[in-house]
Order: sequence, then C-alpha cells, then structure tokens
Amino acid sequence: MPEPVKVSSRASSIEYAIRDVVVPAIELESKGHDIIRLNIGDPLAYEGLPTPNHMIDEYKKALDRQDNGYGPSYGLDELREAISESERVKGWNCKSDDVYVTHGVTEALQVLFAAFLEDNDVVLAPGPHYPPYMAYPQMYGARTVEYRLKSSDGWKIDLEDIKNKMSDSVKLLVLINPNNPTGNIATRNEIEELIEIAKNWPNCTIIADEIYDGLDFSDKFLSVASLSKSVPVITLNGVSKVYFAPGWRIGYMAWHDPNNTLRLVRDGVERILRSRLCASTPAQYGYLAGLNTSKEWLENHRKITEERMKFCLRRIDEIDGLSCESPSGAFYLFVKLTKPEHQINDKKWVLDLLHKEHVLVVHGSGFSPEFGAGHFRMVCLPPIPVLEEAFKRIERFLSS
Amino acid sequence: MPEPVKVSSRASSIEYAIRDVVVPAIELESKGHDIIRLNIGDPLAYEGLPTPNHMIDEYKKALDRQDNGYGPSYGLDELREAISESERVKGWNCKSDDVYVTHGVTEALQVLFAAFLEDNDVVLAPGPHYPPYMAYPQMYGARTVEYRLKSSDGWKIDLEDIKNKMSDSVKLLVLINPNNPTGNIATRNEIEELIEIAKNWPNCTIIADEIYDGLDFSDKFLSVASLSKSVPVITLNGVSKVYFAPGWRIGYMAWHDPNNTLRLVRDGVERILRSRLCASTPAQYGYLAGLNTSKEWLENHRKITEERMKFCLRRIDEIDGLSCESPSGAFYLFVKLTKPEHQINDKKWVLDLLHKEHVLVVHGSGFSPEFGAGHFRMVCLPPIPVLEEAFKRIERFLSS
Repeated sequence: MPEPVKVSSRASSIEYAIRDVVVPAIELESKGHDIIRLNIGDPLAYEGLPTPNHMIDEYKKALDRQDNGYGPSYGLDELREAISESERVKGWNCKSDDVYVTHGVTEALQVLFAAFLEDNDVVLAPGPHYPPYMAYPQMYGARTVEYRLKSSDGWKIDLEDIKNKMSDSVKLLVLINPNNPTGNIATRNEIEELIEIAKNWPNCTIIADEIYDGLDFSDKFLSVASLSKSVPVITLNGVSKVYFAPGWRIGYMAWHDPNNTLRLVRDGVERILRSRLCASTPAQYGYLAGLNTSKEWLENHRKITEERMKFCLRRIDEIDGLSCESPSGAFYLFVKLTKPEHQINDKKWVLDLLHKEHVLVVHGSGFSPEFGAGHFRMVCLPPIPVLEEAFKRIERFLSS
Repeated sequence: MPEPVKVSSRASSIEYAIRDVVVPAIELESKGHDIIRLNIGDPLAYEGLPTPNHMIDEYKKALDRQDNGYGPSYGLDELREAISESERVKGWNCKSDDVYVTHGVTEALQVLFAAFLEDNDVVLAPGPHYPPYMAYPQMYGARTVEYRLKSSDGWKIDLEDIKNKMSDSVKLLVLINPNNPTGNIATRNEIEELIEIAKNWPNCTIIADEIYDGLDFSDKFLSVASLSKSVPVITLNGVSKVYFAPGWRIGYMAWHDPNNTLRLVRDGVERILRSRLCASTPAQYGYLAGLNTSKEWLENHRKITEERMKFCLRRIDEIDGLSCESPSGAFYLFVKLTKPEHQINDKKWVLDLLHKEHVLVVHGSGFSPEFGAGHFRMVCLPPIPVLEEAFKRIERFLSS
C-alpha cells in the first residue's frame, strides 16, 4: 500500500467528545440495537419541545418569496436590528452594526479565534467547558488553559484561579453562562469580579457565550456585556437552544467595545465573514419571527425542561454511585461518578455503559481532562418515560 | 484613545474582491442611488431564474415535519446517497460514505485547507481563480501559487506552466471547471494531461471545483474524478449554482481516493466536521428533492442564461475598449479592458465606474493579481433590459 498523505496536526488533534462517541453508537444501531441517546443537546430529538410554528411559518414564507439568494455577509438588516434590540433589553447599548450573523455559534467561534489568535496566545476558558473552546484555538497555534469551576460548590467560578492564570498572552477570557455542561449560572458578583480581573489586561476580551440564556430556572441570569463599562465583551447567542431550532444553524456575535480597542480585529472578522459569503438566507427570517414575536410559548418549553431535569436529579439522588450539583439553567446534568473504580476512566465507563445497556452519554473528561474527569454529561430532554428507562439501565449497570 | 488590540495577520490579509467592492456600493445606495449590481454570482438576485418549486416544497415539508434538529455531521444519509448517485452518473464509483455535506463549497474549502495544509505548503490554483483559493490557504501558513490560464486562447489551461510549478510542496492542485471567472471548460485532453502531471507527485491531490457543471453550453464538461485511475480527486459541488439556491448554503465534497492514500487526511476532515456539528438540516431535504427529480426545468434556466450571455458578448463586441473570450459555461464574463490607460489600474476603473455610472462589477486583479489584472468580471444574469442599461452606462463611461 502506498504511503499515506500526511494530515495537518491541527486537524488530527481535534476532538469533539459529544459526537466522537456517536461512532460506536451508530455501529450498534446498525446491528439492530436501540440506543437511548442522551449525548447531544438537541431538544428536537425528543417529543414535546418543538420549534414554534410562527417561526416555521415565516421561514416557509421566505422560501415561497424566493428569498433563496445570497444575503448580506453580516446578516439581514432586519435580523441584525432585531438581535440588537434583544441585547439592548438585556441592558447594554447594542447597535445593529455590532451584530454579525453566523452559521451557529460554532462559526462565530471559528471566526473569532482566527481573527484574535496568533502563535502562543492563550484562551482562558472554564473547566469543564464546551469542547470547541479547546478544539479550535490550537488550529491557529494558540492554546486553551482552563480555569477551575468548583465541582463541589455548584460549579461556581474559581475567581482566584482566573487571577492566577491571567497574563498578557490571554487574548480571550471565556464565560459560558448558563454553563454547558454544568448548568451553573454566574451571579452578578461573580461577573463583576471577572470583569474587574480582565480590566487589568488591556489585550483581553471577554467572550460571553449566552446561548442558554432563556433556559434559566433561577431567574438570576445577567448579560455580561450589560455589566462591563470598559472591557470589551463579545456576546454569543442564536436560534439553536432557546428558540428550539438547532438544525437551522443560525447564531450571532454581538460586539460591545466601549473604547473601540477592537477596531483592527473587527476589520479582520469582517474580512473573514465577507469571504465566506453569508449564513442561510431563508432561515434568518425564521429566527427574525422568533425575536419579533411574544415569547410566552417559551414558558411551556421551560416548564417541561425543568420538570425533566428535576426528575433526573431525583433519580440520580436515589442511585448509589452517582451524584450531581443541581443546575440553575440549560438542559444538561454533569453527573459525578462517586466510586473511585468508575472515576478512574470515565471514557471506558461511558463506552461500557453504551455496549452493555445501550445508553449513550458523554465522558466528563471530554469537557475537561483536568476538571471534568470522573463525570459524565447527559441531557435531560427526553420525555420522562424515556429518562426512566435510561436510569433503570444506568442503575442496573452500576450494580452489576 | 487606547492602543488597539492586534488582529492576526491571517485575518487582516484576507481579501474577497467580490464583496469588498460592495462596501462603497452600499454607501452610494444609502444616499439614494440605484446601483446595477453585476458583481455577485447570484441568479436569485434577478428575474427569471427562480429556485424550482418542487425543491422549495420538500424544504417546507421538512420544516413542517419538525426536521429542525441537528443532523449527522457528514450529512443526511439519503442526501449522501443521492449525491453519490449523481457522481456515479458522471462516471466514477462514488459511494455515499465518500460524500460530506457542508455549508456551501466555501466551508468544504475551509475544512480541506485546514486538514491538508501545513506551513510552507503550496496550493496550485488557476490564475484567474475564485478568490477563496487565495484567501484561505494563507490562514494555515501555506500559500497559493497560480498557474496560467491563456488569456488570448479562451483561457485554456497552460499545462506547461503547471508542470514547471509542481513540487513536493504542492499538496493541492485546483481545477475550477467550468471556470469562475472565465467560463472556460476544460477538454478531456487537458484534464487527462493534468492528471498525468499530478501522477508524478505522490503528495498531490486534485481539487475539482465543479459547482457550475450543469451550466455547460458546449456539452463538453467531464468530471475529473471520472478520468482519474490513481490520483486522488476531491470533487466540490452543491445546490448554489446549478439548482439556483445559493442562499440555502448547502454544498459537498466527494472523495475519490483510489489507493486510499488520503486515509489520514480524511480522518482529520471528519474530526473537523464533527466539531462543527452539521449543515442545515431542513435545507438538505430541499437539495435532495432537486437531485431526485427530473432536471428538465434546468433546460429553461440554461437557455435563459445562455441568451443573456450572448447578449452581453454582442454588446461587448460593439463597445470600443472592451473585448472578451467567449465562455463555454457558468454565468460570468471576464472582460478585457483593451486600452492601456484602463488596464493600468483595474480596481480604480471599477470604482470610478461605480461612482460615475452606478454599475458594480469586480476588478480582475481581485481574481488574480498576475493573470487577471486589466480585466473585470461581470455576471450575465439580469434580464436583458437591465443588461442593456448597464452596457449603455459602461459605454458612456468608456467614451467620457
């Protein structure tokens, strides 16, 4: 066999635990096994949490109007205006020019990392965190350092740890709020202290990933940008989670840059965005309808999500070998394996569970080798009978 | 004012002429001027070339079925199968696993360059070429070298020039066929010779960008993959141009790797694709309907496009100061400015035309500093009365 062509080290080292575990699951499914998939944060995969009809209607109207051509690279004007209004409501002076529409938050991250990062720069991100915060910076010669979330104190931010890890190399300081995978929501005090720390480092921009902001069961969510007077904050959000349409692939970044220190980076971001043409045109009209219409319907979706989460917490409490800090928002549970023999290799535990009991969750070390090991992440989105069956299997597996 | 934060050199050096010229056009429009936009290859921007209804219908049905969740990272199974069938029809053994669905061809390029290229690698691409082939490789420390298309011989490929520029550093050899911006279609002989050249370089993969394949007025289009027995070929295509739905953002890459030499790179590509989740789920059903339904409708779209192109060629012929090699496909005209005083700075000429006559075309140097300067690219997509008006203004501008 001829020598294989080399792959770039940037590509070969990418890991995305949430989908990497799907590979063995598909193999089992192809052999006829039914897998209960609790790995992906996709409400549409389960009963009871549909995309609202008024959004679907406007999306369809755009298709019928033949709005099927390229859109503006930074997003449709109407959508940028509606998004900026939704950010103003959260307490900061967002103008429509501050908003850039992307193929989901994932593309926003790719573009931001490409424009901010050079060799040896650092992204300081929570541990545990959503995997792309680790996967993408290395593509541009930079690296991700994790700051600690307190595993036995509701996954609160360890501000001392941030302070100790700040340096001139930290170009981006990430806050995922509500957090994925822990569900923790930062308090006003935590956010203000985090901004205070960033203030000492003129090269540092805060990334505020607020994609789960409407799924707040504690009523304490606050926009980071609304609390920052001088530190630049780039807010990420979109249609996926709080409008229940992740397959539409529409997200955005909104730039709060009080002293205009990001003007050069912003020009770079705009160049990248123009070169990749635009986000889906008709889908943007669907999101627009969601932003411009009353969100009463969300109350019901939130209630269902919270019920399912409470059910999961009750079952976890009952099962020997599991424990979980109670989340304040989002739809994940970051469950601790309490027995040392399970903690030692959480990926093996997850794969064994998959093969023996056909339940798919994600190993905690996939969200943070340092702070997430010995845990697993599951979604609380399926209807209660499905969750009931999943926990029955997990319980049986733990006692076997 | 505080020091600005630095931008990465990768981002600040990106240029995308086709949309960069839109910035001054928008300024003029905001002052109330009507601009005839001939810059973007978007058939939907003009009358008479709509997205077919049967595709829109299936897209809408997917939305109604609540197919709004995440899809598989490599694309929907049914769509991968339909795409592979459409490639098999073109003469090579494409399996559905060889197909990866992306956010348009642009994302396919980003992923390919990220997986193939390391510092100092070379992409050998036609001059002139579609700008992302120059913009993206440098993001990964590589660079693009242009091989010559023969400007006074129908923009045919200069095979000798390719031969001279091949080396072990050339990881990707690009063929855009039908070509954007020249409209040239390669002959069987040219493709076979190009493959013969690549055969001598075991690290070299051919990228065959065939996004305009159905817009062939000469009936000579051939798939590159269908002619390669051993050299790996990655074919790019999608819904944008030949299915008249560029705003849906659905493209694909299809891997023809006869000796499995790309196995490592492919693993890297799959890792990147998983990390960015998926392409739009409902849009994939729209494309699927296009692939699975008779393409009789395309005859009409092609006829209209060809009529408009012929009209443009006639007018160009009549106008002193312009000339153009006749394209065999696609919907662009790469027009030569015949007078030295215009050739010397094609970008200035384009901006002057925009400001004086409110017609927007793209400077040829934006497609190739070396081989495209002294030209401009225009689309032939608007209805004839609009083209008539545009040429009237261009003619007046040239004689002023």
